[in-house]
Amino acid sequence: MSMVRANIAISLDGFIAGPNQSEENGLGEGGEALHEWAFPLAAFQEVHGREGGEENASSQVLEESFANVGARVMGRNMFGGGPGPWDEHDPWNGWWGDEPPFSTPVYVLTHHEREPLEFENGTVFHFVTDGIESALEQARAAAGEEDIHLPGGAETINEYLAAGEVDELLLHVVPVLLGDGARLFEGVGPDVALEQLQAVEAPGVTHVKYRVG
Amino acid sequence: MSMVRANIAISLDGFIAGPNQSEENGLGEGGEALHEWAFPLAAFQEVHGREGGEENASSQVLEESFANVGARVMGRNMFGGGPGPWDEHDPWNGWWGDEPPFSTPVYVLTHHEREPLEFENGTVFHFVTDGIESALEQARAAAGEEDIHLPGGAETINEYLAAGEVDELLLHVVPVLLGDGARLFEGVGPDVALEQLQAVEAPGVTHVKYRVG
Repeated sequence: MSMVRANIAISLDGFIAGPNQSEENGLGEGGEALHEWAFPLAAFQEVHGREGGEENASSQVLEESFANVGARVMGRNMFGGGPGPWDEHDPWNGWWGDEPPFSTPVYVLTHHEREPLEFENGTVFHFVTDGIESALEQARAAAGEEDIHLPGGAETINEYLAAGEVDELLLHVVPVLLGDGARLFEGVGPDVALEQLQAVEAPGVTHVKYRVG
Repeated sequence: MSMVRANIAISLDGFIAGPNQSEENGLGEGGEALHEWAFPLAAFQEVHGREGGEENASSQVLEESFANVGARVMGRNMFGGGPGPWDEHDPWNGWWGDEPPFSTPVYVLTHHEREPLEFENGTVFHFVTDGIESALEQARAAAGEEDIHLPGGAETINEYLAAGEVDELLLHVVPVLLGDGARLFEGVGPDVALEQLQAVEAPGVTHVKYRVG
């Protein structure tokens, strides 16, 4: 049965990006610290098309988080390119370079129409202008029996959580305080029930997985 | 070497009490869910003067959190009794009944002077009106080689964190969203460094311990 899964690294004070996110710094001030636990891992390097790297308690968690994903839905800011119509930006406009680490259809929530953007590794960005339910419907059709992954950002995950559309939430809880930024669970209230499924201690991070709904 | 330790249960969205805390409901709306993992435990029942209860992966964490504590510092709201001078309230004024579960000196941060309040089980509440540094100094003198424990509330822990006075932070991360309430880390910024020491998966809760400073 296909699930909607959100996987995200979060600071101990609840932010998934630091303050003052910009076109140059999509993670915001201090936000790169949220991902330091992942950089050394072979599983991370492989997804980004590189060899080498190490194994630790995070490896299996990360491999499972990438496995069985048939489609993704992300926010405009996570795709990159800044606000406004697309023709105000570079032709590419994303954070992700020539090999976006997705290898699936990715449905980007935006207010501005744009033709799909296709990459050799199987990543195809589709731009969806008619809301989160439409994006999810298209992702479900593309994913088939596989899961739908919500990589972020906070606003997108919060909207799907509040709409009751998320089945599983995997948080990588990082020992850093950002003080400000993009807050997970903003506008998501006590109506959303959580059940703890698993917690994994790993170097510099704790992974906690929840069933939602 | 004596340490300052903060131990606290926290919702996944970062609150240690729900909204609308009152003299009748010190945990705020929904806040009792933060402590449900602890109620069945023998270690919890014992501290509250009762027998029975079960053992699970939380037991050792809870026992260690109660061990080697020589003094405590808590906020006025956690002591209870509501705002304003003490003589506007009942003679007792606390949440904790006739056997407060502390068995140590407890320094209560308040703006209103009051004589110490002593209980047969060794709990003595001292009321400190000249600030957090004074309270900590008195607690250090009372604790000797033992640790100083900060049971809460959020404001008190946040003040000591921001002042750089906390050595160790143990969070009991509970799979519940409160949506609003008393937020841990409010006003505590990226200057406070954390190092993850331990994470323990337990039924209905994940315990994560950090070195602070």
